[in-house]
Formats: sequence, structure tokens, C-alpha cells
Amino acid sequence: MPLYNIAVVGATGLVGRKMLEVLEERQFPVGNILMLASERSEGTQVRFDGASHSTRKLTSGSFEGIQIALFSAGATVSREFAPGAVFAGALVVDNSSAFRMDEDVPLVVPEVNRGMIFRHKGIIANPNCSTIQMVVPLKPLHDRWGITRIIVSTYQSVTGAGHWGMVQLEEELAEQKTGPKKFPHQIAHNVLPQVDIFCDGGSTREELKMVRETKKIFGDDGIRVHATCTRVPVFGGHSEAVNVEFEKPFELD
Amino acid sequence: MPLYNIAVVGATGLVGRKMLEVLEERQFPVGNILMLASERSEGTQVRFDGASHSTRKLTSGSFEGIQIALFSAGATVSREFAPGAVFAGALVVDNSSAFRMDEDVPLVVPEVNRGMIFRHKGIIANPNCSTIQMVVPLKPLHDRWGITRIIVSTYQSVTGAGHWGMVQLEEELAEQKTGPKKFPHQIAHNVLPQVDIFCDGGSTREELKMVRETKKIFGDDGIRVHATCTRVPVFGGHSEAVNVEFEKPFELD
Repeated sequence: MPLYNIAVVGATGLVGRKMLEVLEERQFPVGNILMLASERSEGTQVRFDGASHSTRKLTSGSFEGIQIALFSAGATVSREFAPGAVFAGALVVDNSSAFRMDEDVPLVVPEVNRGMIFRHKGIIANPNCSTIQMVVPLKPLHDRWGITRIIVSTYQSVTGAGHWGMVQLEEELAEQKTGPKKFPHQIAHNVLPQVDIFCDGGSTREELKMVRETKKIFGDDGIRVHATCTRVPVFGGHSEAVNVEFEKPFELD
Repeated sequence: MPLYNIAVVGATGLVGRKMLEVLEERQFPVGNILMLASERSEGTQVRFDGASHSTRKLTSGSFEGIQIALFSAGATVSREFAPGAVFAGALVVDNSSAFRMDEDVPLVVPEVNRGMIFRHKGIIANPNCSTIQMVVPLKPLHDRWGITRIIVSTYQSVTGAGHWGMVQLEEELAEQKTGPKKFPHQIAHNVLPQVDIFCDGGSTREELKMVRETKKIFGDDGIRVHATCTRVPVFGGHSEAVNVEFEKPFELD
């Protein structure tokens, strides 16, 4: 089996560490592994497959000899460094929102549209977490009855906002006030009907992502999606109440 | 101004105390006030209008000379004692679910259908809290464009389950385990897609209440209501995401 040299951009973050865990669990054929992050995290030790790896500062020259680059350090970092990684010969799998709606970038959820993975031009994106977990159960329903409309309300935990989201909830529950605030209001003992920023028209960016990404993943611009996204004071997990309308009469054999 | 003798059934509970607060705030013309509760709370002192009142045990003879009886001690208590209170000459205002769907009992939200208040035969009910706060903003929309369908997801705090709901959340947050459990699962750091018990068909009783009560309040059995009710780890407050379809084209002047 060939081995792949992998770079993880954002290796010290919550998602980066999870990516490393999954590579281990699946015994992915990893050759060299390279931990990349911002200057702030340079030198941080990250464990992988029984060994400790020193995190290096991400630069445009980081990707020589890398076959697969996993990006999870936010859209700004992806926009700046992913094209260079592709130019250096790496296949970029990007967890950020930077390229999701780009025509040349497949937006892939393996359980839903894995075939799209081959149509890349160097970058493959995965959707927002809210979109991913919604489209997985909807896919077989869409295939069978044709979804015309989706009304969804989310209940999203603080981990979706990364490490500092967890810290804010922990500190507020303990009635401490030290760290920076990740959310625009108190999250402990509260529900915030705002995930990410508000956009024109009154929806949040998170809600618009669910609308646009769902249409792209199902390859159907005609599907109407109405999303209400809220943050709840929960450390992990993500729930959604989804109401669906079908084109064909909903009948079971 | 005439004065009214008032009995509060469940005077030591969360809602009972709130009822007393509102009577004070509105300077309701109260003559005598009678605090009633179960035997367990007999003798508990409850303050009203600057004086302390000793709670008495509720019996079928409690309502002599009472003009208005406010019930908030659960459906079982209302079913047992409200008819007797009516027979003794009191007007019963019932916060429980006991009589809400009874044909002879108006189900009233003052901002929505206050006129129904006069059609009582001794008992007036108010709806479930989830229904109340939904129908208030929907009423003017319904009048103007005709609501045909409502899809609602709730985010309900623990106070809706009364005092012991608060205690369970407090204890779980403090990692203590002493009091009885009000919810079927841990509520701290969690979201429960279950409010009240599950009924035939997979909906919870809370969800079915929202469906039935909304139709009754709007006097329109044709309105379709789809509700998903969840409990969130929040001490007070109650949010809902509501999506509405209209009969007439939605146009603003």
C-alpha cells in the first residue's frame, strides 16, 4: 500500500486534533506527518501514532513533498495558503468555508455525494457541520420522494465555535471572567439565536450556509431551505429539528 | 370598586407565587385572599400585599365565599376540585391542562381571543405556555393573511417543569445528586427532545398540546401545526422558531 505524506493545518485546534484521531483510528497509510499552525503555536507538541511531533509555523513553503493537506484553520488561512499547497502538488481537503461555493470545488459528504470527490482541481471542501448532519439522513429520502423544501431549527453546542467557545461557557458557569468572549452574549443559562454574524436580509451566515450548501450538495437549486440556527449551553453535540416536504406522495411499501 | 375574594390553589408553587405577584402589580381589587395547597405545604407562610398568609390544605369545602379561584396545581388537582369550586359559586381560572379541550371551557389568551372569556360555564382555561407565546405574535398575521400551517421548534427552560426542574439542573451543574429527578435524562450540558411524555404516533404530549390548543384558540381546525419541543439547560425563558404559511399572498402595503 502506498503511503501518503500528510500536512494538518491547524493541528493544535479542536478539529485538527480530531482529524489526527480519525487518521489513527482508520489506520490511514500515513508516511510523514507535518503539524502546521500559526506562529503562536510553533513548537507545540502534538502526538500522533505513538510519537510526538513539533508544530511548525505555516508558510507558503510548507507543502513541498506533501500529498494531502488537511486544512482546518479558518477561511482566511485557507484562502491564503491552500492555492499554494495545490501548486506544490498537494490535494487540499478544506474544512473551512473559503472554497465551498466555488464552482471548481466539489462540496462532499461521503455518505451523500462521494462520487463528486473525483471532480476536483486540487481542492475538495466539506460543508458546515450543520449541513453535513442534516443531508446524511435526508439523502435517501430525497432519492426516493424528491425533497422540495426543508425547514430546520438547530441546537448547536459551543464546540462548533472552537476552543474559546468551550472556555467561555466553562468560565460563565463558574462565574469567572477572564478569557476573551467568543459569543456576542452570555451563553451559560441562555440560548442565542445567532450563530456567526448577521447578514443582509436578517439571516445569519450559518443559516445562509445551510441554504446554499444543501442546494449544492444535492445538485438541486430548486430545493427551498429555511434555517434557524441557535447556540445552546452544551459542550458537545449538535441537534436539529428538520421538517421536509416531498415532490412525490410519501408512501411506504 | 367591588372587591373579589380570591383563592390561589398551588399558592406555594412557582406559578402560584407568580400569580400573586401579578395580582399585586396590577393592584387587582382583592378582598380576602386564601392560599391553598396540598397537605405537605400546610402552614407555609406566603406573603401578599405586605401581609403574611398561612397556607391551608385544599379541600372540597375551601371555596365558600370565594369569587375567583386561580388553579395551578396540576391537572389532577383541577379535575378533582375545580367543579366543586364552581358549584360553590367561584369562577375558576385554570392554568392546568385538565379542561382546555373541553367544549364548554373557553381557552383564552387575552391578547388573542379575550372575547371568549364571557362564554364560560364556570371554568376558563389558559393554554400551555408554549402555545401562549406562539399565538400572540401570530394573531395579527392570521387576521391579515390567514395562517394555513405552522412549523415550530421550541427551546424551553427548566422552570416549565416547576421547582424540581430547577433543582435538577442546579444539582447536575454542581455535580451533586440528591433531589428527585424531574427529567428522564440529564439536563445539564444537554438538550432533551422530550417535554412531557411520548404519546401514540411519536409526538410528546407537549407537542400535541401545541397542535390542539392552537386550533381551538384560532377557532380553525384546518390550521396544520407541526411542533418539535425540546428542553434546554436554561433556568428561565422560553424561545421558539416559528415558520408560517399563509392562505393569501404575503404582501405589505
